[in-house]
Amino acid sequence: MGTMRRWYFNKRPTREIEADTLQLREESRPPLRDNEFLLRSVYLSMDATNRLWIGDWDLYMEPVALGAPMVGFTVGEVVESRHPDFAVGSLAAGILPWADYNICNGEGVQALPMIPGLKLADAFGILAVAGPTALVGLMEIGRPKPGDTVVVTAAAGAVGMLVGQIARIHGCRTIGIAGGAAKCRSLTEQFGYDAAIDYKSEDVIARLRELAPDGVDVHFENVGGEMLDAGLTVMKNFGSVVICGLISTYNSSGPVPGPYMFRNLIMRRLRVEGFVILDYAQRYPEFQAKLAQWMLEGRLHYRLHIERGLENAVDTLKLLYSGGNQGKVMLQIGAEPVT
Amino acid sequence: MGTMRRWYFNKRPTREIEADTLQLREESRPPLRDNEFLLRSVYLSMDATNRLWIGDWDLYMEPVALGAPMVGFTVGEVVESRHPDFAVGSLAAGILPWADYNICNGEGVQALPMIPGLKLADAFGILAVAGPTALVGLMEIGRPKPGDTVVVTAAAGAVGMLVGQIARIHGCRTIGIAGGAAKCRSLTEQFGYDAAIDYKSEDVIARLRELAPDGVDVHFENVGGEMLDAGLTVMKNFGSVVICGLISTYNSSGPVPGPYMFRNLIMRRLRVEGFVILDYAQRYPEFQAKLAQWMLEGRLHYRLHIERGLENAVDTLKLLYSGGNQGKVMLQIGAEPVT
Repeated sequence: MGTMRRWYFNKRPTREIEADTLQLREESRPPLRDNEFLLRSVYLSMDATNRLWIGDWDLYMEPVALGAPMVGFTVGEVVESRHPDFAVGSLAAGILPWADYNICNGEGVQALPMIPGLKLADAFGILAVAGPTALVGLMEIGRPKPGDTVVVTAAAGAVGMLVGQIARIHGCRTIGIAGGAAKCRSLTEQFGYDAAIDYKSEDVIARLRELAPDGVDVHFENVGGEMLDAGLTVMKNFGSVVICGLISTYNSSGPVPGPYMFRNLIMRRLRVEGFVILDYAQRYPEFQAKLAQWMLEGRLHYRLHIERGLENAVDTLKLLYSGGNQGKVMLQIGAEPVT
Repeated sequence: MGTMRRWYFNKRPTREIEADTLQLREESRPPLRDNEFLLRSVYLSMDATNRLWIGDWDLYMEPVALGAPMVGFTVGEVVESRHPDFAVGSLAAGILPWADYNICNGEGVQALPMIPGLKLADAFGILAVAGPTALVGLMEIGRPKPGDTVVVTAAAGAVGMLVGQIARIHGCRTIGIAGGAAKCRSLTEQFGYDAAIDYKSEDVIARLRELAPDGVDVHFENVGGEMLDAGLTVMKNFGSVVICGLISTYNSSGPVPGPYMFRNLIMRRLRVEGFVILDYAQRYPEFQAKLAQWMLEGRLHYRLHIERGLENAVDTLKLLYSGGNQGKVMLQIGAEPVT
């Protein structure tokens, strides 16, 4: 029995997440039934898209219903089990309520194999969402050729820090855009970008023209708004634009104008394509094997930004919207399993 | 010797083309030099994109310089020649000054082979620009599968009237959007559309949802603005959006917002792609052969909207912007050659 704490979707925000948008409640934990197991949360992945799940847009998946628990990508340890496939002591991950404990029946949850040599935080932080997103977005949607110039926005974020490195492994020239001198330094010093642009202090279009005088082949978009317009302005003919995220618009209510340089789809003959990483679930083993190998070989650098305590979940998610993070944002809810 | 009349780009318009934007001037015609020939204009193609050539956007080609002759796709008869490849009496076509006579050196001009069974107006009107644009846009950019639902905007226009029929030949369901009852009638009665939506009197999104309850696979955009937003709203997951034209924005000065439903590139995993038919010049023979065959077999219906007289060139171009045309707009400048 015992109790558990869960965050509930209490009130729809009109713009930023507010104090009463989500509510943490303590409740009693019913005993397990057959084919259920109790998962003790260890890490919760914080992704910009989580904000959309409590908005009123027509999404790529069912949104969180008002009154229901808020959910996110979580990894935990099985601590009690009446389920044949999930043994006590094993790890499982999936989109689950923001909670310290979850009672699962196996649906939507997958056993997480540990990769020898990788810490749980690294494996979950990079391999669960950000890594596959970067790999699919760049290689399957953007499809750069070796020698191409690739531009990445939010380049110091969870996905952006990886895209540049994967592009470089593939033989591309890379330009990262981020906000602030510290982030920009990390782009060239830690994440292997050939050049960095600080959108807070530099004229992005002018700098892109300077760094890529012949234009840009592949633009990887995480932000939207002015960043995307800058990118569309400097594209090379027949270039491709990957729409991975549009975080600058996710707090909006009411209509959001699309890029003002939309006409460049014609003028520069561009392919602009969006994707959702959930569609590639079946190919995760392939992606994760490739990413893990690069991590173990020291070819893929990354930074985790880990906050602690279930009660800090909302503030942690908001870091993504204030730009207060560097690298992959996660919340540690419980201790790592003793191995 | 003699004289010739030409339209000149006199003053850049801020929005609609104005009375002093273009000026018709009569001037003396110099004698031919070696490797030149005199082309007597017969038809001038009027295309929405012509308006862009006198705007100040960064285009897919060099714009018309202030003070230079206005140009457009023209077919004429060689009436004098000192050029070995262009015999008197033959036909030639290319992007040429709006004029009754042009002195050409062969650059940018191609001999136009006549297709037995097709009148010059039909061959030029359909095969020169609109037909290849419809074919490339639908089949190479949109890439529908048989059984797919295809939506076309400005469906009674030069390109739109052809796209629906090509889609149908390919086994697709087709929905055309046009303005007014007469145009909508022509869509289903003459151009083989399965259904028509009158954007002037109907709620486009509601009708699209009614006609395509499972969503739209391929959206072929000629207009932009609200039409494109309606299209993006009802797309099926993994659909494709062809950006052929954005005529609703071509008279704009200042920034033009992109589609408000741009986020659906992610939510519906869309590929949105623009193209310029000039890039496909080398494949024209292949496209024209296919289109001509359909025309001769009576499988491709079309309507020409022919105005007459070089002095009416500007008013004729403006028909495209007022929606005052049905079908392919052309200007007849001189008599058809006697054959």
